[in-house]
Amino acid sequence: MNASSPLLISNPLHIAGQLAEQFATTAAERDKQGGNPKQERDLIRQSGLLGLAIPTQYGGQGADWKTVFQTIQVVAQVDSSLAHVYGFHHLLIATVQLFSQPEQYGKWFEQTAQENLFWGNTLNPLDRRTTAVKVSENEYLFQGEKSFCSGSIDSDVLLCSGYNEEGKLLIGVIPTAREGVSFLGDWNNMGQRQTDSGTSHFEQVKIQKDELLLNPGPLSTPYSSLRPLIAQLIFVHLFLGVAEGAFETARKTVQSQKAWSKSLVENAVNDPFTQKHFAEFYVQLEGVRLLAAKAVETLQKAWDIGAGLTAEQRGEVSIAIATAKIAATNSSLYITQNIFQVMGARATTAKLNLDRFWRNVRTQTLHDPVDYKYQEIGEWVLTAKVPDPSFYS
Amino acid sequence: MNASSPLLISNPLHIAGQLAEQFATTAAERDKQGGNPKQERDLIRQSGLLGLAIPTQYGGQGADWKTVFQTIQVVAQVDSSLAHVYGFHHLLIATVQLFSQPEQYGKWFEQTAQENLFWGNTLNPLDRRTTAVKVSENEYLFQGEKSFCSGSIDSDVLLCSGYNEEGKLLIGVIPTAREGVSFLGDWNNMGQRQTDSGTSHFEQVKIQKDELLLNPGPLSTPYSSLRPLIAQLIFVHLFLGVAEGAFETARKTVQSQKAWSKSLVENAVNDPFTQKHFAEFYVQLEGVRLLAAKAVETLQKAWDIGAGLTAEQRGEVSIAIATAKIAATNSSLYITQNIFQVMGARATTAKLNLDRFWRNVRTQTLHDPVDYKYQEIGEWVLTAKVPDPSFYS
Amino acid sequence: MNASSPLLISNPLHIAGQLAEQFATTAAERDKQGGNPKQERDLIRQSGLLGLAIPTQYGGQGADWKTVFQTIQVVAQVDSSLAHVYGFHHLLIATVQLFSQPEQYGKWFEQTAQENLFWGNTLNPLDRRTTAVKVSENEYLFQGEKSFCSGSIDSDVLLCSGYNEEGKLLIGVIPTAREGVSFLGDWNNMGQRQTDSGTSHFEQVKIQKDELLLNPGPLSTPYSSLRPLIAQLIFVHLFLGVAEGAFETARKTVQSQKAWSKSLVENAVNDPFTQKHFAEFYVQLEGVRLLAAKAVETLQKAWDIGAGLTAEQRGEVSIAIATAKIAATNSSLYITQNIFQVMGARATTAKLNLDRFWRNVRTQTLHDPVDYKYQEIGEWVLTAKVPDPSFYS
Amino acid sequence: MNASSPLLISNPLHIAGQLAEQFATTAAERDKQGGNPKQERDLIRQSGLLGLAIPTQYGGQGADWKTVFQTIQVVAQVDSSLAHVYGFHHLLIATVQLFSQPEQYGKWFEQTAQENLFWGNTLNPLDRRTTAVKVSENEYLFQGEKSFCSGSIDSDVLLCSGYNEEGKLLIGVIPTAREGVSFLGDWNNMGQRQTDSGTSHFEQVKIQKDELLLNPGPLSTPYSSLRPLIAQLIFVHLFLGVAEGAFETARKTVQSQKAWSKSLVENAVNDPFTQKHFAEFYVQLEGVRLLAAKAVETLQKAWDIGAGLTAEQRGEVSIAIATAKIAATNSSLYITQNIFQVMGARATTAKLNLDRFWRNVRTQTLHDPVDYKYQEIGEWVLTAKVPDPSFYS
Repeated sequence: MNASSPLLISNPLHIAGQLAEQFATTAAERDKQGGNPKQERDLIRQSGLLGLAIPTQYGGQGADWKTVFQTIQVVAQVDSSLAHVYGFHHLLIATVQLFSQPEQYGKWFEQTAQENLFWGNTLNPLDRRTTAVKVSENEYLFQGEKSFCSGSIDSDVLLCSGYNEEGKLLIGVIPTAREGVSFLGDWNNMGQRQTDSGTSHFEQVKIQKDELLLNPGPLSTPYSSLRPLIAQLIFVHLFLGVAEGAFETARKTVQSQKAWSKSLVENAVNDPFTQKHFAEFYVQLEGVRLLAAKAVETLQKAWDIGAGLTAEQRGEVSIAIATAKIAATNSSLYITQNIFQVMGARATTAKLNLDRFWRNVRTQTLHDPVDYKYQEIGEWVLTAKVPDPSFYS
Repeated sequence: MNASSPLLISNPLHIAGQLAEQFATTAAERDKQGGNPKQERDLIRQSGLLGLAIPTQYGGQGADWKTVFQTIQVVAQVDSSLAHVYGFHHLLIATVQLFSQPEQYGKWFEQTAQENLFWGNTLNPLDRRTTAVKVSENEYLFQGEKSFCSGSIDSDVLLCSGYNEEGKLLIGVIPTAREGVSFLGDWNNMGQRQTDSGTSHFEQVKIQKDELLLNPGPLSTPYSSLRPLIAQLIFVHLFLGVAEGAFETARKTVQSQKAWSKSLVENAVNDPFTQKHFAEFYVQLEGVRLLAAKAVETLQKAWDIGAGLTAEQRGEVSIAIATAKIAATNSSLYITQNIFQVMGARATTAKLNLDRFWRNVRTQTLHDPVDYKYQEIGEWVLTAKVPDPSFYS
Repeated sequence: MNASSPLLISNPLHIAGQLAEQFATTAAERDKQGGNPKQERDLIRQSGLLGLAIPTQYGGQGADWKTVFQTIQVVAQVDSSLAHVYGFHHLLIATVQLFSQPEQYGKWFEQTAQENLFWGNTLNPLDRRTTAVKVSENEYLFQGEKSFCSGSIDSDVLLCSGYNEEGKLLIGVIPTAREGVSFLGDWNNMGQRQTDSGTSHFEQVKIQKDELLLNPGPLSTPYSSLRPLIAQLIFVHLFLGVAEGAFETARKTVQSQKAWSKSLVENAVNDPFTQKHFAEFYVQLEGVRLLAAKAVETLQKAWDIGAGLTAEQRGEVSIAIATAKIAATNSSLYITQNIFQVMGARATTAKLNLDRFWRNVRTQTLHDPVDYKYQEIGEWVLTAKVPDPSFYS
Repeated sequence: MNASSPLLISNPLHIAGQLAEQFATTAAERDKQGGNPKQERDLIRQSGLLGLAIPTQYGGQGADWKTVFQTIQVVAQVDSSLAHVYGFHHLLIATVQLFSQPEQYGKWFEQTAQENLFWGNTLNPLDRRTTAVKVSENEYLFQGEKSFCSGSIDSDVLLCSGYNEEGKLLIGVIPTAREGVSFLGDWNNMGQRQTDSGTSHFEQVKIQKDELLLNPGPLSTPYSSLRPLIAQLIFVHLFLGVAEGAFETARKTVQSQKAWSKSLVENAVNDPFTQKHFAEFYVQLEGVRLLAAKAVETLQKAWDIGAGLTAEQRGEVSIAIATAKIAATNSSLYITQNIFQVMGARATTAKLNLDRFWRNVRTQTLHDPVDYKYQEIGEWVLTAKVPDPSFYS
């Protein structure tokens, strides 16, 4: 596989599928280990997919959102940690497009596309411990910690953030190797175990003014406020991918099983209860797939409108994505829990590690409470008020 | 409104919307009465929509399936009985296309388009009481009764059916006014009360051989077996339309209500529980809308393939429609039951007659057991076997 | 049947069962008619059950709450309108015990027990249209209307209520025949159709001071605040009874049915899907039965404590009843909706009128929003705060 | 703590509570380790609870079933692995009472009560790999393997089983130290990780005839067939205990949390969505508690009847336990999954290891498929046929 091969570039889903095949062989084992999946991250680098969403004028492949999300989903079917950091890479690429101008991000994109740079995240607006102090006309010092920094370890480029004295959130882009940046490696949670979503530390990190995303800046316009919606839609594709992976695992498992001794039939595939469970899974999956596809379409339209996007138009994207997220949350939890019902007791062996599907979606679905996605949609239905943009809406 | 006006013909959704507006004013009252909605059926005749699906070469409007189903859905939002008989009219038009040849049905279509003829149904394959006896080379006598004959009363053309001595189902098309045809008017059920789905009686009814659909005949090929799938997809749009109508009613009702005395807020639209209920309704509706749209698309493709349709291709349509039907069944029952939860006790007044939404979907969703739609999908997921064509699959 | 027979008095459940048997023969038909079930109310009078809860010293049967609620449930299995007004009779008997003193209510009880008087309700605290003006030391004039007056028509004794100038709710007990009292007979709702829950009118109705329940008065102490809890527990037994009635109807219907043509078995009773549906119904019913029984026990203990009941003890009763009510609400809606799934399309005939089960619980479960029962329990779980007494908690 | 202390004997729930307190401090950590909880098993030995169910004439405490199950539930609230092996100890004590006679088991019971012996299980009737060959009038040789042998490692007494040449299951009781008995220690599953439910190996193990339970033998009478029902009811109390443990953890966690930024209130305990979630948990728990209590009562009555128990009476126990099991299965899965919804993302840290609640019930609820518990109840509802006794019914 050669990342620069035109063939591969022309077929990102095929590349993602090949990556997924490789990841699948070790996913169960790596989930137990946790930590940083360096080898797999390098395979992503080599695949060329890190430039997938970068516009062609900067050497990227200029893929549309549909393609980007599909590659995330394909990876999530076998490994939602890698799908997460891979998805967040694209989120960060989009972030600079939304929060800054081409003259600023152009060179970053060129370098990223050319060198297959992996972007990492230390942007957690709820954690206010990192401060950004202006020390000269062109220089700031970032100092402090940030939690939930998915994909930070082993990244090449880092989106970092800090609050200045006025309480304004400043966001910068720096090489991860910048002096003073370190990571505690303290992510050890019940799911999404290889996302490195732990704590980062900034020790008097120097950041130049031209590394800050000031024009237009974070969530400053309806258009720039698409950023959190893209994050949410990445989650939708994570949940969907995991649910699909669990479904496939259950399907293959059941296909060779005998039915329970009291069944009217011999083979599990003919057992009415088993059949009904799978139909329930399938109907839910189909619904989520279509809701996700509609949300992607809606996002793409808004993305294409650009800076002129109205608050109302942005609101429609928000509702479409919240709708998909609720359905994806519920279905992925339902399916990852109930595949065991059809597979039976032997599927609980730690060797197979099939609880990871549930642990992964159970963990990631808590990013922000789904109750308030319902709340936003309900309010909109009843009052026509679209959700106020925030880092979670 | 003038059914032959080019404007109207060019905008069937607009026409359906106008019909719906008229039907809405009397729907609650007519539901209580039951019986035959003669006046409203005449409005449908005058609208020109009875020719909607008839190919243009026969004077029809040659609309695609998407348009046809949307008009059914629009009517179902306010009156699912009328949507039912209107939908079945289009089902019967499709039936003759699938079970016979243009040289046979061409003249029927021309007359239907020109005179806005309403087709009715006496085809219930489970009821074997009507016999078809060949009395001469070209003549058959139909004798006996048929139950569940939706849309039969006040129809102009009648699809009739009987079993011959060998147990083969013969299906014919005759003027409803044919001597010997009568209807008992005995439909009085808890829902779909103006569908006239009662018993028809055939007293030595003469049917000519060239009125029988013998080439290729019922369910004789994968293509002709699309017929029951179209029926199922009409139900999907009925359920969806009713659910949408219930949702709209609840939304409008709640918008002017105070919240419950113990609520944290003053107005119902701001109550968190109320908002979450509406979001649950909305997420379900969106899912069903997309599943229905996908099923329609799949059907259209199969329809366009024509006689060459393979069993496998027909099976895919079957699965897409079964998927949509399960979701539409569950969601329409859920929504029509739970709108009361948000509207409160005053919404139970018989004057509003809001239980008709639930009664209508509860009745129509029993056409064939949804458990066996699950069964079909589950079997297909696990064994790749598509459902065997039947009048219910 | 002779209401004064010692045998009958010693076996109230048997009597209730006999009543239910009689009511069952006409319940479907009477539901359609609506209006006042005079003949059946007279059968209740003759049964002697109106004195069931009246202490023996006043000539009543001194039954415990368990017995009282069981008789309500038995009637609700076949006719929830009659169960409602019969249950409310007992609620009103309890009301005067909780809101006044024996020296006041003793004579009412004696007369009720002796003459089998039926008590009716015009106490709707949310409707403030009826005023109570003191016109002399011992006389008040009630003037205005009250909605939702279940059981008022054809009652012998009437609990009436009005707000005085200070906004205080005054509750009185008068003969229904008192001059100036009239009923509009305007109850016509989708469920509970023979409860006469319409509007009453008070035209300068004279009420003596000694007819008012002033000591201790409404909701004045934790003990007197048991009153709304008794109302809620009556609803629990209504919902449970209706669900049981629906379950029995479905069971009997299915026992003679063939399974669907695609089933693995011949008879419906052996169909796996059908079996699972019935098991789901049964498990829910068993749960509700036990929750209701526990709530009754808790109430009985509090009732036996009497005036010394603490707010905390009253709170425990409140939580036990709210718990039972949530379960009974959900299960009765679930079962009355889904019995159709197992019975199939023929069960929708208006002749059987089986939708009345759903219409009845759907209507009565809206008395006050179940969402706020959840809210009360959740708050108590998290903060140990018991619900504040009100006419709904 | 001294197991022979009269105080402790008189208060088994208190002892169980003390054990639970100790187990709680290490439960999260031990779950990660898996393996044999030797130290905690010794604490159970020292507690005296191993003699809890042994009749007093053999030196035991002669506790009723209610007490036994409650101690299991209390332990399960903090550690369902220990609850499992502790519960199975009591199951095995009951097994010999049901499958053999006092003259045979008396000495075993005396020794168990006196020396606090822990019984272990190698009885898996579905695994037919262990053979029992009669080698002389009084001696048998057991040879082969058995899977799913919960509580076998570190047991003092072992219930073992093998199939003889005629395919009959022979069950024996031997010291675990008997020559030839070994355990592979290969239990490593996603839940119930310290139950040692791995493989045992019998290498030409000599078993005397008077160690075999031949009179009346396994499942030979309705009474002896209570054995699998006791196993099922242990599971019910496991599931219930875990759900209660999860509920308590969530409650304590939420009590100190702030509400989500978009909430109408400041503290999580006042958030309407959070309150409703907790109420849903509570209502389910209450229902399961009562269903379990009723099942225990039904079992106790059947146990007290003894050898004269009829098949019909045994069937009623079976239905009561199946009912409780379905509810406990559904509720424990629901609660252990959804506590995260109220606790939020920080509850996913591996340090807390809160996913063990879900992993434990998800694993143990697969012992036998709950679908067939529904099937049994549904069949009984519709045909009055009680489930045929088997090791799973």
